[in-house]
Amino acid sequence: MSNDKGVNRMFPDWVRIDCPAISLGFRDAALARQSELTKPAGALGRLEALAVELAALQHTDRPAADRVPMTVFAGDHGIAAHGVSAYPQEVTIAMMANFAAGGAAISVLARELGSQLEVVDAGTLAESPLPGVVTDKPRRGSRDFSREAALEPAEIAFAFDCGQRAVTRASNDKPDLLIFGEMGIGNTTAAATIAAALLGTSAELMTGSGTGLDVAGRERKAQIIAAALSHHGLGNAAADPELIMCAVGGLEIVAIVGAIIAAAQRRIPVLVDGFIVSVAALLAVRLNRSCRPYLLFSHRSAEQGHRLVLDALEARPLLDLDLRLGEGSGAALALPLVRLACALHNRMATFAEAAVPGASGNKP
Amino acid sequence: MSNDKGVNRMFPDWVRIDCPAISLGFRDAALARQSELTKPAGALGRLEALAVELAALQHTDRPAADRVPMTVFAGDHGIAAHGVSAYPQEVTIAMMANFAAGGAAISVLARELGSQLEVVDAGTLAESPLPGVVTDKPRRGSRDFSREAALEPAEIAFAFDCGQRAVTRASNDKPDLLIFGEMGIGNTTAAATIAAALLGTSAELMTGSGTGLDVAGRERKAQIIAAALSHHGLGNAAADPELIMCAVGGLEIVAIVGAIIAAAQRRIPVLVDGFIVSVAALLAVRLNRSCRPYLLFSHRSAEQGHRLVLDALEARPLLDLDLRLGEGSGAALALPLVRLACALHNRMATFAEAAVPGASGNKP
Repeated sequence: MSNDKGVNRMFPDWVRIDCPAISLGFRDAALARQSELTKPAGALGRLEALAVELAALQHTDRPAADRVPMTVFAGDHGIAAHGVSAYPQEVTIAMMANFAAGGAAISVLARELGSQLEVVDAGTLAESPLPGVVTDKPRRGSRDFSREAALEPAEIAFAFDCGQRAVTRASNDKPDLLIFGEMGIGNTTAAATIAAALLGTSAELMTGSGTGLDVAGRERKAQIIAAALSHHGLGNAAADPELIMCAVGGLEIVAIVGAIIAAAQRRIPVLVDGFIVSVAALLAVRLNRSCRPYLLFSHRSAEQGHRLVLDALEARPLLDLDLRLGEGSGAALALPLVRLACALHNRMATFAEAAVPGASGNKP
Repeated sequence: MSNDKGVNRMFPDWVRIDCPAISLGFRDAALARQSELTKPAGALGRLEALAVELAALQHTDRPAADRVPMTVFAGDHGIAAHGVSAYPQEVTIAMMANFAAGGAAISVLARELGSQLEVVDAGTLAESPLPGVVTDKPRRGSRDFSREAALEPAEIAFAFDCGQRAVTRASNDKPDLLIFGEMGIGNTTAAATIAAALLGTSAELMTGSGTGLDVAGRERKAQIIAAALSHHGLGNAAADPELIMCAVGGLEIVAIVGAIIAAAQRRIPVLVDGFIVSVAALLAVRLNRSCRPYLLFSHRSAEQGHRLVLDALEARPLLDLDLRLGEGSGAALALPLVRLACALHNRMATFAEAAVPGASGNKP
């Protein structure tokens, strides 16, 4: 798929297709209902807006977050050779097996929340398929982007389609919402480099401790990111998202970009996880702005750059619990709030039903 | 119970009895387990500390938040005659009926979360018992504290015992955790006055909009609070909590103070709701400091004074969603996080079990 006529051809055509509009009618009906429920107007705070938003996205007067399958995309990163993580690279494959075996955080959360969990090898170094894992990758790992482009256009296109295929599988159960997670030793480095390039931010501001680097380790990571930005000519905010993905992308990250756009095109909202999925969301919005309304943000992570990415997306997440695990775990932890927001919206009595007097205004 | 020998006699003796100590052994075991689970150390952020805290309080290596009964205490307030609320006073009784009938926010949340919900009339104006409500009150409503003491010592003592009785009933099911809520038109005014007196803070800083006062309404409310503080000689931080409760207390607030101390004495942690329950918690800690470890804080409300009360308690709540409903709804909304923190602690695989390599340190 790579050719000399320009980078636009590196993406499958579907990536640019507009997502459906939200329903203003259902939004207004939901707003009206909120004002009739037996509580002071606005007293349920952000949960009111959340229920209204979901009603508008789902085109319903009874929003739901019951069926919420989760997909974790795993990938390896050539940049991991430079010691940018506190963990050795073989952890990617070992954790992928742990997801499938049910022992990882996201496995426990999916069980507790009644969610289907699918694990996709979108580009790890695994040489043969693992039991319980969907293998859907164009190559084993990305290239070391300190020296060369991480991915070729055809590999990027494959990863987009990988994300779309995962959404197609998850859509069989008519999901109310989707959660995407990631695993990949080195992927906070790739994500921070992508985000710094997209936002024209310095490596120093964007680089966090990932899974637990010490101060010196984080400083080394920032230097590697700064050098990569310079090497690929990505030092300013004008860089094209397509060029950025080729230069410093990762296969699981690009798969999530594809999954987000594919979900929004099917009118399925996405509960966005932490730093890496948020960077994928920023890429998705830059590629196809019409997906933005479908993004609900679950949490603000402890990873330093997340705040900058959320600000760029004008996102205000539900939780702020110093999480920095990834896997989709932050989104899973926020799911009960979305469910309870829906339950309150759908099942509380109105003032009329309960014969409760309304506000009398501010008495003199 | 009131007598001339001093205000100390106004409380039942049990209020001062020490709560059991937390288990340092189970705390250390829980900390050790957290470090062995298949995730980077600390990556689950505040949920790790929460699971460890619960293990220490519950004296177990498998903390739980499965059985969590909720009790809502309702009371009326003489100060409501001064238009300190956006709602008429009869809403207290109407909402009490709505709790029992299942239409209120806390009713919906209790059902969704599988919690028993008990509604206690701890001091409303209701002249006869309502169906589905436990009536346990020394009088109908508090007195208008702009002119006289809100409650007599014997009434305070009754309300403490009311809270203890509710905990005794809830204890039959061996709860893992308890949630207390409140309802009472005018009770943010009582709570703000109590908190201003306890902390020596100005009425202006402590007064919020309650259920939805406009700017002028909030200003009037602050003036009423300032005048009451002055009238009762509560203008400095040295005021005694017992004197404060008599002067400006409310029956449902004092019942919650009793319930918190009674729960902690039985070694049952309490998930503290918003502004009013936090003011009750501050009173409880001032009366019996040994209950403090049993308090888990659920959310930071939109009510202006809550931040000051949480700071005084050195509390950092789990959620910050602009909630300002009361009823225990904020605590109920945080319950899934506590449950998931326990599930992660109890059910994730260890590095050894999953054969995942641990951190390799920061490579050179």
